[in-house]
Amino acid sequence: MSPGRTAALSDGIIAIAATLLVLEIHPPDPASPDIWRALADEWPSYLAYVISFLTIGIIWVNHHRLLDAVVSVDQTLLFLNLLLMMVVAFIPFPTGFLAQSFREGQGESAAAVLYGAVLLAIGCVFALTWLYLARTTSLLIDPGRSRTSLRRSLTGPVAYAIAILTAFFTPLLSVALYAAIALYFVRPGWKSRPAEAASSDDASS
Amino acid sequence: MSPGRTAALSDGIIAIAATLLVLEIHPPDPASPDIWRALADEWPSYLAYVISFLTIGIIWVNHHRLLDAVVSVDQTLLFLNLLLMMVVAFIPFPTGFLAQSFREGQGESAAAVLYGAVLLAIGCVFALTWLYLARTTSLLIDPGRSRTSLRRSLTGPVAYAIAILTAFFTPLLSVALYAAIALYFVRPGWKSRPAEAASSDDASS
Amino acid sequence: MSPGRTAALSDGIIAIAATLLVLEIHPPDPASPDIWRALADEWPSYLAYVISFLTIGIIWVNHHRLLDAVVSVDQTLLFLNLLLMMVVAFIPFPTGFLAQSFREGQGESAAAVLYGAVLLAIGCVFALTWLYLARTTSLLIDPGRSRTSLRRSLTGPVAYAIAILTAFFTPLLSVALYAAIALYFVRPGWKSRPAEAASSDDASS
Amino acid sequence: MSPGRTAALSDGIIAIAATLLVLEIHPPDPASPDIWRALADEWPSYLAYVISFLTIGIIWVNHHRLLDAVVSVDQTLLFLNLLLMMVVAFIPFPTGFLAQSFREGQGESAAAVLYGAVLLAIGCVFALTWLYLARTTSLLIDPGRSRTSLRRSLTGPVAYAIAILTAFFTPLLSVALYAAIALYFVRPGWKSRPAEAASSDDASS
Repeated sequence: MSPGRTAALSDGIIAIAATLLVLEIHPPDPASPDIWRALADEWPSYLAYVISFLTIGIIWVNHHRLLDAVVSVDQTLLFLNLLLMMVVAFIPFPTGFLAQSFREGQGESAAAVLYGAVLLAIGCVFALTWLYLARTTSLLIDPGRSRTSLRRSLTGPVAYAIAILTAFFTPLLSVALYAAIALYFVRPGWKSRPAEAASSDDASS
Repeated sequence: MSPGRTAALSDGIIAIAATLLVLEIHPPDPASPDIWRALADEWPSYLAYVISFLTIGIIWVNHHRLLDAVVSVDQTLLFLNLLLMMVVAFIPFPTGFLAQSFREGQGESAAAVLYGAVLLAIGCVFALTWLYLARTTSLLIDPGRSRTSLRRSLTGPVAYAIAILTAFFTPLLSVALYAAIALYFVRPGWKSRPAEAASSDDASS
Repeated sequence: MSPGRTAALSDGIIAIAATLLVLEIHPPDPASPDIWRALADEWPSYLAYVISFLTIGIIWVNHHRLLDAVVSVDQTLLFLNLLLMMVVAFIPFPTGFLAQSFREGQGESAAAVLYGAVLLAIGCVFALTWLYLARTTSLLIDPGRSRTSLRRSLTGPVAYAIAILTAFFTPLLSVALYAAIALYFVRPGWKSRPAEAASSDDASS
Repeated sequence: MSPGRTAALSDGIIAIAATLLVLEIHPPDPASPDIWRALADEWPSYLAYVISFLTIGIIWVNHHRLLDAVVSVDQTLLFLNLLLMMVVAFIPFPTGFLAQSFREGQGESAAAVLYGAVLLAIGCVFALTWLYLARTTSLLIDPGRSRTSLRRSLTGPVAYAIAILTAFFTPLLSVALYAAIALYFVRPGWKSRPAEAASSDDASS
């Protein structure tokens, strides 16, 4: 099975998961005495939406980087990809629960742990996939770069594990960490792309 | 009509059906005294999500295998494909009902039968399509392999029929069977692909 | 703008509209004394789902036939296509309302009229688009066939207009007509494709 | 990263956001004494649906125009695009709130301001992206045209800013302005396309 076909289905799931996030935001009652205040009180929903949307954006970039590095997709890679998509498509659930618990001021700790656990799981499946690719070098276009990719894929899980630990004590801090991780990866994660693109241009010319 | 165009629309429907599954999971009340327990009590929702997602993943692989074997799509094949998509897009409904009935501890038998019936229907449409292709060999790239595909397409319906029978007596066992069928097909179903890919590489070289 | 790009976005909207239909089906309470009966009482939801799904399938086929006949997409065609997609994406609303009114045994007439009106509107936008193409022949690959397509595009609106009239007096009969129209078009609408495909094969060979 | 891949994911998000709009329309109770009146009373939902759908259609056209003008996508452009998609995918929320507040006759001012603010934000991200492209001319196919595109991208934000101001005093007028802006851009925005297409044909011939 070609990487292109797998990428197309995965892109569909990623796009839908990102767009379904908005359904977890419930508008306030228009009849509330201070409607502006009621809209502002929805901040956990907006914040959760932004963090999850950016995180899904990063997953999309990382997912493409992975499939770009691959010659063909074997049965194990298909299974790992299905696993990855299963957790990505699950993101709207912990996002909605995170927003709800902060809005009601109850259960924030559990909600923040659950949210981090899902992102940690995604990071682990990514790392597992790179580990599989590093060991089964026949699937890679450039096996020499697999160790770098594997090492880089461990940054996310470690960061999320730390954030989850803080969630048990200070849920709001863990949410700030989830936001910080998303913002951090949105930039340097993409910074390294042009370099790769340049080198692949070299190869084709 | 080319198989590619039909595949594109079907992939869209399959990806959306898989991603809509998460909307059937309703977060617990953040104010419940034991929030961890409340989250754990949602296990039927998580389990139903995993089984349905994996099953849809298998449907996607089988659907591609079918369209890969075909030269062009005639009117009957289009109709059978529309029928297939109609039942696939229906999956979130029995999935949500299955989770709800196990969570509430009521109506599990009916929910497990309904769930199995939908998967059985999908298997039957697949078998029917392969039967049609085996008889109208002009649509197939390699008509010689149609009998193998037809025989293999009967495994699913038989397995689901058995699981449905157990659902009348022990609903939980039938759910375990649905999970087992999904896990079984996730592996060997994909195992046979590289072999096919290899032989089609032979043909093109 | 190329027809391919417009087709891709339209296919996306059509696939999503079809898949969202399932969200309009609300599962019965698992605790109801006769759960099988409760599931059977949902028949208006299942019927509305099937009719709408098949109808959207026909719209997809007709939409592809239209874009296949076109060399390029100008601003008016883009607007007509956006109008068409706007009404297609609206289908889940009258579908849900139709199912709900028949389930509750109230307001069936209004629901059946609204449902038919939406399908009539889709048929009219199709006819309008063919009329525009027949007059602006420069956009068509084969302008000679435009009159046949225009004439054929009027069948749907006429059939829906008749069904809407019956909806005022016998709502159930109109629903039967909507189903009959869908089933009728699912077959002969596709029958004429191979002939077209054959002639376009001639052209390319 | 190629513009094609970014366009594919963005098209997916745009198509889904447009199609999710229908979920914000809640059917009336079929048992209401005057069901036709109840359906008519839903006019804010229909109007909000039409305005948002047309506006998303315009965003799609503008987004393609932007990616068509670009040779490759660098990290900043990817980030700006992700930002754009984040706000586009958010549209169903202010759309639903706008419809709800007008239906209940409460909080219309806040709802109309929020709605306009989201569309203003989209316009600003578009303008920001054109500003970035005008300064980083290396990403553009035809850098000479960047100033025209930048100037044109400011029309939307200015129009939305004016509409938002009226929303504080006469909410209904601002909604009329949102509709007028959508209708205005649906036409002349597309009118200029064939000219561009013609000139790019010149370039390729």
